[in-house]
Amino acid sequence: MPDIVRMTLDEATTLCERSAIAAGASPEVALSLARSAVAAEADGQAALGVSHFIDYLDALKAGRMDGGAVPEITQPAPAIILSDAKGGAAHPGFDAAFEKLVETANTFGIAFFTQRNAYTCGALGYFVGRLAARGLAGLAATNGPPLLAGSGSTKPVYCTNPMAFAAPVASGPPLVIDQSSSATAFVSLRAAAKRGETIPAGWAIDAEGRPTTDPFAAMKGALLAFGGGRGANIALMVEVLAAGFNGANWSLDAPSFDAGAEGPGTGMTVIAIAPRLIDPDFEARLARQIERLSGEYGVHIPGRAKANARERLLREGLEIPRAVHDRIAGVKS
Amino acid sequence: MPDIVRMTLDEATTLCERSAIAAGASPEVALSLARSAVAAEADGQAALGVSHFIDYLDALKAGRMDGGAVPEITQPAPAIILSDAKGGAAHPGFDAAFEKLVETANTFGIAFFTQRNAYTCGALGYFVGRLAARGLAGLAATNGPPLLAGSGSTKPVYCTNPMAFAAPVASGPPLVIDQSSSATAFVSLRAAAKRGETIPAGWAIDAEGRPTTDPFAAMKGALLAFGGGRGANIALMVEVLAAGFNGANWSLDAPSFDAGAEGPGTGMTVIAIAPRLIDPDFEARLARQIERLSGEYGVHIPGRAKANARERLLREGLEIPRAVHDRIAGVKS
Repeated sequence: MPDIVRMTLDEATTLCERSAIAAGASPEVALSLARSAVAAEADGQAALGVSHFIDYLDALKAGRMDGGAVPEITQPAPAIILSDAKGGAAHPGFDAAFEKLVETANTFGIAFFTQRNAYTCGALGYFVGRLAARGLAGLAATNGPPLLAGSGSTKPVYCTNPMAFAAPVASGPPLVIDQSSSATAFVSLRAAAKRGETIPAGWAIDAEGRPTTDPFAAMKGALLAFGGGRGANIALMVEVLAAGFNGANWSLDAPSFDAGAEGPGTGMTVIAIAPRLIDPDFEARLARQIERLSGEYGVHIPGRAKANARERLLREGLEIPRAVHDRIAGVKS
Repeated sequence: MPDIVRMTLDEATTLCERSAIAAGASPEVALSLARSAVAAEADGQAALGVSHFIDYLDALKAGRMDGGAVPEITQPAPAIILSDAKGGAAHPGFDAAFEKLVETANTFGIAFFTQRNAYTCGALGYFVGRLAARGLAGLAATNGPPLLAGSGSTKPVYCTNPMAFAAPVASGPPLVIDQSSSATAFVSLRAAAKRGETIPAGWAIDAEGRPTTDPFAAMKGALLAFGGGRGANIALMVEVLAAGFNGANWSLDAPSFDAGAEGPGTGMTVIAIAPRLIDPDFEARLARQIERLSGEYGVHIPGRAKANARERLLREGLEIPRAVHDRIAGVKS
């Protein structure tokens, strides 16, 4: 068993919050970032959880994420909320707009949040999961620096370009789909390289665009989309949804999120839908269907594993690797 | 060269329209259906084009599609348009709501069309392509009778559950993504069976849930999603978008579209977004990005092949197989 530190969610949030402030973030930004990372950790998504907070701290210190940025929120149309994150984190703009987004969806039936000029947003499911907790369905997309080849291209033109979808379910955890458009994450290449292992065919191509199972060659090349051309089309759709409407950097123009002093200027879009306005029975009807899909047909329901992890970790405490804990706790301004 | 009949779009529309009326459709329904099939034909999508009209005619005659149904359109919230197709075709409800959908999106920035109780809708890209022609981006989803296994299931629980996305592009054809969640279409199994060929691994499973390359076994089993679990999650998202909000039949509950007297009661949702309200330069900016993706990186841009087909077929005329032409022309009430 690795050396871990057990913490409540509140303790982990405070740990992250303080370290972000020490790294130059305003209290609002620090809390916004801390909550998102701890939520991912509590969902069992360790790679996007508290350990990911180290990336945020590095970005704050290097200036890639402006810890003092105050997002500028405007409403160019009654059901559209536009955020300019001003080179800061992705979360404060969403947090600042959240109640307005919920209210707008509940008023018009649907509302559109779109943000430019932000640091990469960590777990995308976090944003739509919060909508589901308020009885709304959500669809989200985000982009970032190029890692993923397009349909027919041999060079990276998109980030892993995840898409997330959530819907509230009566008497149970929400349905939460949160998946990248790539067949795997870039960190999987790095992990295989570290272990001296090959990677499965279909994950990546090398710098010359040839299929490769060598993780080192893959890291110099490009990730491949899941499911070939159809997955690559999803990545293109995500690119337009995430960065097309709001003037964010296209993936091709996005500076690295882990090197340099310039932020990626990433885009994110979150669509909120109010199903109860159409069918007051929506959540119960979806609950019955999900029970049928899962119980009678054995369909894997995305979101349940996260809900189970959360239940356990709320009871037993988060399990933060000591090295991660110490690195975050040791941040000095 | 197969025996074909060359027709203008107008001639083909009139041919289909008349035959639908002869099969029991009202003039409005006949025109709505004819236009959609001819549009798919003109886009080079022959399988969803005029030959697909034979399925519509069969459904009209058998009562699976009520040719006299008048869709009931309501607005349960300012930006939501709900259509009950009343067992009729999918297109008349969308046609009846179309101007309202465009106007609502242009007023609020986003609008949501959702329909229950319809026959299957043919080419889904048709609906979002029409939005793009009016300067709107569109996202659409539809379901139907079960053909596709879910993530982890061995039985079909979804239809091929396509998703479509379109966005207007300055000085060029719109971006139009239109793809099923399955690795292939059911007709590909039938075609392979007819030719006595095997099917590629990954397309389907047999009735016991085992991977198969035998098209006959596959037809008794289930299609597989493209890209494994991620593609199956897209199918689930499409299922909720298409049938979750509006009370349409879930795929599992949808009667066949090609047998029996009961219609599939399918759902469809189309989200319309007005990008110009956020960025007046949207279409030009997207045009530059698409030119870069295509020109510099060789990315396949979905929608261009359809636009090229349309340009050629508008010039040279549609090429309808004589057997299809004669079957449609020969419909008697």
